[in-house]
Amino acid sequence: MPSSTFAGRNIKYVVLDITGVLKESGPGGGHAISGSIDAIKRLYKNGFQVRFCTNETVMTRHTLVQQLKNMGFVIDEIKVFPPIPAVCKVLSDRKLRPHLLVHPDSLQDFEGVDCSNPNCVVLGDATEQFSYENLNKAFQCLMQLEKPILFSLGKGKYYQEKGNLVLDVGSYTAALEYATGVTAEIVGKPSPTFFGAVLQDMGATASETVMVGDDIVSDVGGAQACGMAGVLVRTGKFRPRDENHPNVKPDAIVDNLAQFVDNLLANMA
Amino acid sequence: MPSSTFAGRNIKYVVLDITGVLKESGPGGGHAISGSIDAIKRLYKNGFQVRFCTNETVMTRHTLVQQLKNMGFVIDEIKVFPPIPAVCKVLSDRKLRPHLLVHPDSLQDFEGVDCSNPNCVVLGDATEQFSYENLNKAFQCLMQLEKPILFSLGKGKYYQEKGNLVLDVGSYTAALEYATGVTAEIVGKPSPTFFGAVLQDMGATASETVMVGDDIVSDVGGAQACGMAGVLVRTGKFRPRDENHPNVKPDAIVDNLAQFVDNLLANMA
Repeated sequence: MPSSTFAGRNIKYVVLDITGVLKESGPGGGHAISGSIDAIKRLYKNGFQVRFCTNETVMTRHTLVQQLKNMGFVIDEIKVFPPIPAVCKVLSDRKLRPHLLVHPDSLQDFEGVDCSNPNCVVLGDATEQFSYENLNKAFQCLMQLEKPILFSLGKGKYYQEKGNLVLDVGSYTAALEYATGVTAEIVGKPSPTFFGAVLQDMGATASETVMVGDDIVSDVGGAQACGMAGVLVRTGKFRPRDENHPNVKPDAIVDNLAQFVDNLLANMA
Repeated sequence: MPSSTFAGRNIKYVVLDITGVLKESGPGGGHAISGSIDAIKRLYKNGFQVRFCTNETVMTRHTLVQQLKNMGFVIDEIKVFPPIPAVCKVLSDRKLRPHLLVHPDSLQDFEGVDCSNPNCVVLGDATEQFSYENLNKAFQCLMQLEKPILFSLGKGKYYQEKGNLVLDVGSYTAALEYATGVTAEIVGKPSPTFFGAVLQDMGATASETVMVGDDIVSDVGGAQACGMAGVLVRTGKFRPRDENHPNVKPDAIVDNLAQFVDNLLANMA
């Protein structure tokens, strides 16, 4: 197994965010970020274990992977970890029946989940479905429960879409938390349980793993809180002020994924 | 000037919440709560100074007062204090131009306010207008400002409408606060500035004033924080658990406004 001296560690495992690292968002799924397709091939070629960890919930995992393949990425669906399969497992384990406020294009990934007589709420990035009516329905469902449970698929504040910043699921979760007094259980980055499942899948220890993302808090801070190294890319929703974030200091900041892989491969044992 | 021994004080001034105290909400403005019309007349007759303090922002002050008059209330428009006239004064004093996300039926009360090239956001109870698109527009406006300023007309979590609990402006404010990192300036209850303007209008001291409301936090807690006595009614959005609120202990809890006035008049000096 290969390893590289990076950020004072021996790195053997690589976890990559998708949107903002592999691709920029945009119509039809967006476009590959220059050098990213090749960068991933170089990681594979040099024997690194790679997983993809995303908070994407506006489409099924299959659609997401298909879009990436169409862009030219070599990527295996079972190595992609989005929140919906993870929350489905939690719902099944805890015998919960959700009221779903999620994106219509993601519904297929909830197939087989019993949504009758709901005893919890699952909030995804519902975009246009975040109407006053729909948010009230989710709110009313929580208020009717004796022990209200709210799952939030990630806790992102906002992201870039067609050149505009738009609100992410975390902002709507904040609204429901304020209204109900319930603290949401996060499924997705930066939840340690979520990162833990990815590490487990690789048989990796956190200290030998690096996470690369464009979200200074969820990706970099979340990975660091789990004991991984956290690398920030200057692509995606990166903003210059992220380099001086008050709470999170990345182990490295790179222009893009290609530059990260350059650095990683340059320091191989 | 009359006074009554109430909650260990000499009470000379009375501030009343409107929805949930004078009337229950509902179609066409709702209906008068039994005994409330007469209760207010008895306060007037006994010489108490009375003001009406509401966080209502889904209509103009004129419409609100007209609805109350149609129900049989004797009420003078200049004695009614809603947040919109208050925020208009703040905007004028600080030379701010708002992006408005408010109820269409309240827009007339913003007449004459310059909304071009906005340098702040005003959030009211926009109800159906709280679409994904509109909330994003308010969010984007804040993100584009060097010094973002967010005004929230009240900070209510939810209220009852046609038998259902529905989200109030405060919940949407929480979403924008989370997304932007900006702390909203509250105009309306429980802002001390807002209560202060009502006291000033009566020439009242807080210690001689009692506030009656159905919101344990905004009405009762807010008034107490300003030095007034706070009375909770068991009408409107009152819920039995409010009687054991962890942080707010009302000076009195009464079945309704009529019972409060009974008690007040029974202890007159």
